[in-house]
Formats: sequence, C-alpha cells, structure tokens
Amino acid sequence: MDLTTPCEQDLTQWIGDHPQDLPSSLIKHIGDDCAVFDPRSLSKLAVTADMLLEDVHFRRRWVSPYFLGRKSLLVNLSDLAAVGAQPYACLLALALPGDLTESYFNSFMKGFLEEGARWGAPLIGGDLSRSASIFVSVTAWGSFQTGRPLWRSEAQDGDILVLIGEVGLSRLGLEILRREDFSELWKIDSEDSLADWAGDDFRNRCLIAHLLPQSLVHVGTWLCENRVVNAMIDVSDGLGSDLLQIARQSQLAAEIEVDQLPLPDRKIGEIDPLEAALNGGEDYALLFATSEKQLDRLNSEYRTDFPPYRVIGRLYSGEPGLFLKRGKKRERYEPKGFDHFSSC
Amino acid sequence: MDLTTPCEQDLTQWIGDHPQDLPSSLIKHIGDDCAVFDPRSLSKLAVTADMLLEDVHFRRRWVSPYFLGRKSLLVNLSDLAAVGAQPYACLLALALPGDLTESYFNSFMKGFLEEGARWGAPLIGGDLSRSASIFVSVTAWGSFQTGRPLWRSEAQDGDILVLIGEVGLSRLGLEILRREDFSELWKIDSEDSLADWAGDDFRNRCLIAHLLPQSLVHVGTWLCENRVVNAMIDVSDGLGSDLLQIARQSQLAAEIEVDQLPLPDRKIGEIDPLEAALNGGEDYALLFATSEKQLDRLNSEYRTDFPPYRVIGRLYSGEPGLFLKRGKKRERYEPKGFDHFSSC
Repeated sequence: MDLTTPCEQDLTQWIGDHPQDLPSSLIKHIGDDCAVFDPRSLSKLAVTADMLLEDVHFRRRWVSPYFLGRKSLLVNLSDLAAVGAQPYACLLALALPGDLTESYFNSFMKGFLEEGARWGAPLIGGDLSRSASIFVSVTAWGSFQTGRPLWRSEAQDGDILVLIGEVGLSRLGLEILRREDFSELWKIDSEDSLADWAGDDFRNRCLIAHLLPQSLVHVGTWLCENRVVNAMIDVSDGLGSDLLQIARQSQLAAEIEVDQLPLPDRKIGEIDPLEAALNGGEDYALLFATSEKQLDRLNSEYRTDFPPYRVIGRLYSGEPGLFLKRGKKRERYEPKGFDHFSSC
Repeated sequence: MDLTTPCEQDLTQWIGDHPQDLPSSLIKHIGDDCAVFDPRSLSKLAVTADMLLEDVHFRRRWVSPYFLGRKSLLVNLSDLAAVGAQPYACLLALALPGDLTESYFNSFMKGFLEEGARWGAPLIGGDLSRSASIFVSVTAWGSFQTGRPLWRSEAQDGDILVLIGEVGLSRLGLEILRREDFSELWKIDSEDSLADWAGDDFRNRCLIAHLLPQSLVHVGTWLCENRVVNAMIDVSDGLGSDLLQIARQSQLAAEIEVDQLPLPDRKIGEIDPLEAALNGGEDYALLFATSEKQLDRLNSEYRTDFPPYRVIGRLYSGEPGLFLKRGKKRERYEPKGFDHFSSC
C-alpha cells in the first residue's frame, strides 16, 4: 500500500485479509458501497461516533500506533457501555499523513481489530485517506438483548451514585507524558514495555489508564440486563461534568461524598489527585444512579470478575447542580470540563 | 459557542435547536451517550462512511461552508443510492480549526441539515472537535423497503451497462477552481451567485457537479425496488475504475462504447472531456448492469422526473478487465483512478 495516496480500497483489502468473527445477521461487510445487515433480530440498536485527533486528543510521539488503534475503539465502546448495549460492529474513518509508514498503518489496524475481536465489535467497513495529521473517527453499534437502554435522564430523587472504574489516573498519566515528553514512547507497544518505562506501579497505572482505558462494556451490559440502574453515563469529560449531565437531565441535585471518592495515590507534577478525579477526563469509568433496593441486588449479585463498584454520593430533589460534601460541610462545585492540549 | 474548544455538546445542542423530521423508529437521538433506534421494522440496514478532508478532498477557499455541509452528506447518500437503500439517518464527526468563526460552523450545519431534510437522512448525533484543518466524517444508514440490496458482484454475461448522471463535469469543475484559484469563492453560498461567477452555462454545470453533486438516492431506491438492476456502483473514483470494480467482482469483461458515452462539451485547460469522463472522479453518477429484459422494463417504466439514463456498453464473459470500443476498434483500457490534490 502506498501511504501517499491511501484509499478506501486499501482499508477494505486490509480488512478482507484479516478474518474476523462476524455476526450472523451481517449480510455484507466489505467490498461494496455499503455494509448491509439484517437488524430484525436485534431489538434496539445504539449508535455512537467519537473522534481521536492528533494534537487535540493525543500526541503522535507519546503513543504507539498499536495502542492508538486499541484506544480508538475502546473510547467508542465506552459510549455503548454507558447505555448498556452489547457491541455489534463498527466503522473506521482513518486519515494518515504521507510521512507515516505502512507499518504504522498495520500496527494501528492490528490494535483496532484486536479490541474489536475482544469485545465483539468487528470492523465492517469505513474510509481511508491521507491527511496532514492523524485523524481517527469511529462509529460503533450495539444491541440490547433483554434490557432497555439506560439514559442519563432517569435518575430518581434519593438515588445513590455508584462509580465503577478509576477516575483521575488518566489525567495524571497525561501529565507524565507532558512533563517527560519522551519522544520514543511511540515505539512502546506492549504493556510490559510500558511498565518497564513507567518504573513504578502507580505511574504505570496512570499511563495505562490514559493510553489503554479499560473497557467496561460487559459491566454496562450486565447492569442493563439486571435492571439495577436508573441512569448511567460514561465518565469521559470528567466526573464532575459528567455527573452534572445526569443531574441536569434528571432535574436533581447531585452530591459527591469526597471521602468516598477513590482518589489516585499521589500528585503528578502540580496535578492534585482530587482535581484529577473531578476534572481529569478520559477516565472511561461508569457512573450511575441506583435506588436503595437496586443497590441491595447489586450487592448480592454483582459479578466478582468485574472491577469493584463504589458508592460515592447521592441525588436528591433540588435545583440541578453539583455539590461536594466533606464531613458536614457541603458546597456547590462548578466542574471545569477538560481540554487537554488547549494550553500546550 | 467557542470554536477554540468545541465539543460534542456544542454539536448536540445545535442539533437540538434545529428541529428535524425524525423516523418513528428512532427512540433517542441526542443528549445521551448513544442514539438508539428500533430497527425491527427496517428489514435490512445499509451503512457507509465517507470523509471529506481539507486539502485532500477540497480547498477551504474554493467552497462555502454551506456548500461543503451539503456535499458532505450528498457523497454519503450516493453510497446508499448505489445499493438501493432509502436514507434513514446519519452521524457527523466534524473537526474545525480555531480560526474559523461560529458562523462558518452554522453555515456548514445549515447545509448539512438541509440535505438531510431533503433526502430523509436526519442527523441523530456525532462528535465535534477543534483541529488544525477541516475534517468531516459522516456515517449514513439506509433501509430497504421491498427490494434487496444491489451488489457490484452480480452482473451477468450479456448485461447492458447503463449510466445515470453526468461523468467528467466534476473533474472539469475542479480544473476551473484550480486554474482560477479565486480566493473568495468560499463566500458564494447560493446557486445563483455561483452561476453569476461561472459566467456561462457549461462552466456553471461543471462547478455545480463538483461542489454540489446531484443526489440520485431516489433513483437508486426506485431501481432497487423495481428490480431492473443486476449490479450497481456509484461513480465516485472515476467511471473507468468503478466499472472495473463491477467487472472484477462479477468476473466479466466490460466494454464501453465510446460513442455512446455522454461527454462534457469541451476541454477545460488541458483536461480532455473523454479523460475527464473516464478518470475524473467525484461524479456521483450511478452505473449499473441490467439484462435486455430488465432494460425493456426500464424503457417503459422509468420515471420521467428522473435524470435520463444512457446505455454506454456491455459486459460479457472473458478475463475481467475494461475495454474501450470506438467503431469496430476495441482496445484494453487501464483506468487511472484519481487523487485530486496529489500534485497540487
């Protein structure tokens, strides 16, 4: 393949050369103008699209193409997890600068397809082009077997807030990358080599959280099918700002018990653990609202192979907004959202 | 909206502020992690994704944001037309440089939504980001009411090749833009103003073909539902190279009768009409293979409000490849494909 003029056919040929497990309802994936499937067995379908752009969402020198391919799919699967959908398939629109090699493309695709195979989201088509900088745009579908979709807007007065996954580590991982700016990180394409480079376990967890976010799709599907959730969101813009989405859309006030919040062990540079946890972004944790009764069921039925969940606060009637509670003190909090490279 | 840090919420808010006709099977479009719909009434679903990238597929100074928004959707609808699918909905991933204004974004979106409304493809979500150059990535879905999808691979020995829409004009339109490089073309956002700038009808048809390709989705759906087609493709990479796709996938030889080919009236610069017709690209015409019997039905039933169709050649058993026939002379032809800006 000539990366000075890549085109859709190069992508579909690559897909054709790499067998995947395809759902039986898929009638055609590559080689034509569209992929076509028979959705009648799928009950409801969820669709989402997220981009990763060079120098907006990542730096080329800080991430290997293999990790970038994996993360590109994982951030989209996180949106499916948030509504409780089981991944079904995905499309990839990829644009690469002509100075990259075919091996860069191959490594990206390898990572992308591996995660697709792991979580049941085969790549069924897309587009490929050259560009001045790396541009990744993914569309992912998911289906619902038995549950109904989980919205942000259906939290109830008195609901308990539960968090699954870590918050803040990803922001600290990014801070490590920014401070150390190691220009050969893009050559690191295994978790073992990354751990070696990280040096200690905490730094490694931060880097992994940022470069290879954990997928909680099976957890999201389970929560949906077991009807233990009233409202859910994936934490991608920062815990504070994502919780505010649930609060506003459900017309409730939200309160985080700061002492209950799982915080990163220590600062990285000037980034405080609480600040990272509230405003870090790119955590891809799941945050949901659940009733006391549902929480009882969760306590007894939650699968032991899933990451632990933690109660971090509650929702109650009142002007929609976010409050932090420390002991008896309670104050309104305005989340900052995030824009990683706005000041780079 | 602050275009130095646009985000998904800015896009979904814009969508929410601009009412659209939504299909009744759409359960949720914006405001959550995914759009969700009930596909069980939809028989089969087709999906496609195409990108438009600044300085790869277009120059910012040659196209108004309003026209760019329209074209972004139209090129995707063309892939749906090629399989015979009726548009259902679409997603937009858009990245814009911070030096563009909110009015640029608004004009782009206005054009995008107008075409969506015209062809029944409402925008149900997506992503928005800043970037160094303009990136547009669209995913579009279509459904099949009664017909079955039309593939490239099902042409039969003896089939007749039929073309609907113009080929070559778009390439000549691009040539006008390249030669004249008028830096204020991006301010032209109506067909009337474009016609004024073009000066004569032929130049105007070339520019329109390039900037605002005609949508043939209704034609594609009709051809599919009336079962008058064996194999179809949309002409986006150039007539020669797209016909070769049908020939190769159907394992047949393809022959174009050059005298039957509708050619642009004249040269623009050094670009010869036949060369533009065979290798121009971005025509978004429909090319299909049909039997004698089907052609009879087409002759009697084709809708008069559709653009005319023309028989341009035939397919027959033999080594897959492309031949040009001029009178009694017949020679093999290797299409060049296209890459508009590779030598700019």
